[in-house]
Amino acid sequence: MPTHFILVRPQMGENIGFCARAMANFGLRSLRIVAPRDGWPNEAANRPSAGALQDGHIDVQVFDTLEAAVADCHYVYATTARERALAKPVNGPREAAQASFQRQGRGLSTAILFGPERSGLSGDDIALANAIITFPVNPEFSSLNLGQAALLMAYELYQAQGDDEGELLPFVGHQDAPPANSQMIQHFLADLQARLDARGYFTPAERADVMKQNLQALFMRMDLTEQDVKSLFAVVKMLG
Amino acid sequence: MPTHFILVRPQMGENIGFCARAMANFGLRSLRIVAPRDGWPNEAANRPSAGALQDGHIDVQVFDTLEAAVADCHYVYATTARERALAKPVNGPREAAQASFQRQGRGLSTAILFGPERSGLSGDDIALANAIITFPVNPEFSSLNLGQAALLMAYELYQAQGDDEGELLPFVGHQDAPPANSQMIQHFLADLQARLDARGYFTPAERADVMKQNLQALFMRMDLTEQDVKSLFAVVKMLG
Repeated sequence: MPTHFILVRPQMGENIGFCARAMANFGLRSLRIVAPRDGWPNEAANRPSAGALQDGHIDVQVFDTLEAAVADCHYVYATTARERALAKPVNGPREAAQASFQRQGRGLSTAILFGPERSGLSGDDIALANAIITFPVNPEFSSLNLGQAALLMAYELYQAQGDDEGELLPFVGHQDAPPANSQMIQHFLADLQARLDARGYFTPAERADVMKQNLQALFMRMDLTEQDVKSLFAVVKMLG
Repeated sequence: MPTHFILVRPQMGENIGFCARAMANFGLRSLRIVAPRDGWPNEAANRPSAGALQDGHIDVQVFDTLEAAVADCHYVYATTARERALAKPVNGPREAAQASFQRQGRGLSTAILFGPERSGLSGDDIALANAIITFPVNPEFSSLNLGQAALLMAYELYQAQGDDEGELLPFVGHQDAPPANSQMIQHFLADLQARLDARGYFTPAERADVMKQNLQALFMRMDLTEQDVKSLFAVVKMLG
């Protein structure tokens, strides 16, 4: 079941494009637009979408009313920055994303409503929602626009998928290189110590053991790979 | 200690403005700009910043080089989407934000590097970082621009402040020793490279840059303390 982003009476085509781009970046497909001011399709949306609208990454549906747009949705969130007197649960984007992902696993669809740029969602719009999403922002400078709010929400929905499956993020890096085993590291350290010893590094004699331990500790906590040890061998050999 | 956003050779003033706005939304103050294409100040940044630049929400500093911009930073992340052969730890934005918050609690500063719009950070830029941040995006449509990447990072840094402070990442024992800042580490690396260069280590010439980057990467991911750098200096001096 998809998660729908629903733009309610959006004004600028440019912002529809930014929303589409944000969605595509995070694997969301379903964009519903309610009564867009400048109609649909809207040429102004294309460039800001960075290809998301033109290349089939996004399915767009247009509706005359919000009622029609949310008709088949199982749970509806209204995004709003303002304090509202309406008695609805208020969520942060992260917890809403996690709940949406769980709902998806149960075969239930979620909609996220975003209001018009200038005024935000109306009381009547919010009345159609089950709950509210408020973005945590700096109280002294809160200026999230439509595209930014959509980006954060899309990001959290994508992250929520990874949370559940454990580690979905591609954590590559030097962890993939074969780590040096203890023998390799000790071999390198013995070589280094011998060279330093020959040059009288470990003085005074009563501090020699501590100095050697410190040197060892320095290299032991580096999570050295085999390649690292080879490089260090080469460096030390070259210097000596 | 602040978290710095560092824009490296940014091209469009507009994007500098979007970054400033993203930062102000999430309570970040320190924006460092390295060699902006169109100079600084730049009129084009003002409107997209939504007042963040004009109303004193952001402190801007301009630098000629990235080395100078990171000199006083204790830990540096490079944001990059590409697969890199460099042996550096790769983090998602969330874990990087949590680690930055913990670092802050220990009086240590963090920098996040963002590259030029078209090309992204260069290998030389990334060589100055301790670790990489990669944003998890849809592999079939990955089109995060500079402002969007800055927004997500700023958002995660703000969220990390609110996370349960009991949930600390495991820092190993050397955490109490004062960590080396970037300037100290680069100073050591420059000395080591000069010594190796004088001995003809970086051959063949066409591999010299890669060899230097690999050597740099090896020491950059060690979380070196000030004492470690002193020890390494002494070791290298003694060997040479």
